[in-house]
Amino acid sequence: MKPLRWVKAYLFLLTSTFFLTAHASDINGPLPSWNEGPVKQSIIQFVEEVTNKNSSYYVPPEDRIATFDNDGTMWLEQPMYTEVIFALDRLPEWKNQYNKLTIQAIHHAMAVTHSGMSVEDFKTIEKKWLATTKNPRYQRYYTELIYQPMLEVMEYLRQNQFKVYIVSGGGQDFIRTYSEEIYHVPIENVIGTTEKTKYVYQSKQPQLIKVPEILFIDDNEGKPVGINLFIGKKPIIAFGNSDGDRQMLEWTQSGQGKRLMLLVHHDDAKREYAYDTKSKVGTFSASLIKEAAKNHWQVISMKNDWKVIFPFER
Amino acid sequence: MKPLRWVKAYLFLLTSTFFLTAHASDINGPLPSWNEGPVKQSIIQFVEEVTNKNSSYYVPPEDRIATFDNDGTMWLEQPMYTEVIFALDRLPEWKNQYNKLTIQAIHHAMAVTHSGMSVEDFKTIEKKWLATTKNPRYQRYYTELIYQPMLEVMEYLRQNQFKVYIVSGGGQDFIRTYSEEIYHVPIENVIGTTEKTKYVYQSKQPQLIKVPEILFIDDNEGKPVGINLFIGKKPIIAFGNSDGDRQMLEWTQSGQGKRLMLLVHHDDAKREYAYDTKSKVGTFSASLIKEAAKNHWQVISMKNDWKVIFPFER
Repeated sequence: MKPLRWVKAYLFLLTSTFFLTAHASDINGPLPSWNEGPVKQSIIQFVEEVTNKNSSYYVPPEDRIATFDNDGTMWLEQPMYTEVIFALDRLPEWKNQYNKLTIQAIHHAMAVTHSGMSVEDFKTIEKKWLATTKNPRYQRYYTELIYQPMLEVMEYLRQNQFKVYIVSGGGQDFIRTYSEEIYHVPIENVIGTTEKTKYVYQSKQPQLIKVPEILFIDDNEGKPVGINLFIGKKPIIAFGNSDGDRQMLEWTQSGQGKRLMLLVHHDDAKREYAYDTKSKVGTFSASLIKEAAKNHWQVISMKNDWKVIFPFER
Repeated sequence: MKPLRWVKAYLFLLTSTFFLTAHASDINGPLPSWNEGPVKQSIIQFVEEVTNKNSSYYVPPEDRIATFDNDGTMWLEQPMYTEVIFALDRLPEWKNQYNKLTIQAIHHAMAVTHSGMSVEDFKTIEKKWLATTKNPRYQRYYTELIYQPMLEVMEYLRQNQFKVYIVSGGGQDFIRTYSEEIYHVPIENVIGTTEKTKYVYQSKQPQLIKVPEILFIDDNEGKPVGINLFIGKKPIIAFGNSDGDRQMLEWTQSGQGKRLMLLVHHDDAKREYAYDTKSKVGTFSASLIKEAAKNHWQVISMKNDWKVIFPFER
């Protein structure tokens, strides 16, 4: 039986080397917080193909545009968008009332709290709020409630010379205040809903004052419009999580060559939240589920694809 | 007298080394098409200071924002803005009539020729026009009528890790069509006047159609507004040439630390054009001349500061 034992020993050596390698690449390779599976595989395969000069799908670095939705794709959006909580916190009559709010009340709160001051003053107020306000469920600052696996995707793409953008229905100024620090996305790469600003002089110094008027809404069909306005090129990879991202993903897919479209599905009530078709915040409707399947958009299961949700869980 | 002759010889050696050095730095150093003088000196001194980690004026790379006006600062704008000539060329009733045009007629021509088609189709039409139409005076393509000394400034700034932007009253889509090729400014770094776009489906494919409605005008106070919208940071160096650039220069100067503001003065009728206070195109009014002097903005004399105007003169 000696030969067989040698074969066994060889097989043992082979498999343990295999697992050691797999383990090592899990720790040191890309996307360590992602479980092995078709979604992780599709991201890595996509990046390897578009960066391979010998591939017919090769894309030069200047055209490697990646766009990410923010609320529900990069950070927590339940039970209410952080920006709305911030707005309501500044209006005593509404504080902690966001379960009873109408859309009109939210718009009113946003208009009142996001205008009548300079862009700089707005950011100062927001920074202070972010540094002092904790989320009740997690007892963490909102800037800690970001998705570790998505941070790794951004980093992996940047390492492969992608230009990484946030494309959000949320306020551009609101996101810019923290995007560099928590996502390493420079503020000029933040596309969001924008209010108009007015150029005025205060004590002979020019100031840009936020006025309660929308310049454009960067949601739904506003996302391709915003992408064209700010970038002027189609993304080749795009991440979203809700109906507001549908047109961004369609727009991404409509370009030539290889494209990858992905949607985060919140199906983890234990570690985060489970919601889709019936949620008011971050609706992932039945028709979007259908469109995703028809167009081969990848659906990311938070529960199955992500080893951890937040950076502090590591 | 021997010692004196030694001194003379030493002085001779010293001065010839000096001129040799100056000559070498002229050929191989930055800004070779600029004559030695206070303006060239101010640019080099500024860049050396803000990139020197030991200087109190040091600026980290992510905040090294440089903005350039386009018409009259980067390329020819006389006898009429190239974009207007392009628009009129497509309207047979107006072709070559730009001396008789009212502002209303120009707005009408722009609206008609810049809408009702997809962004892509607009760029295709423009590219064809740029590749086939020559300027009558110089018998050169418009994309050749760019200012060599300004190209060198852009390149010098990029070498020093500045982010270089075009900030123009002209059309964003119009400039994006050629900015990468002739200025090496990527299209996402082009800020200009923008029309609204509409997201529609044609043969089931999404398209962005240009509609004859202005989203925002990137001129005068629109320049700081556009800079804030697209970049979110103040420039530390800005170049313009006319009244439309006044607020951009004020906005640049209003930041803390070292700032440099410059205006190109067209005073060279022989090689280019000489115009300022009375010109309808690129007006450099008496009040701007006054403000420049008061605020220590540098005025660039095309005649005296530039060895050559266009790249083909080298």
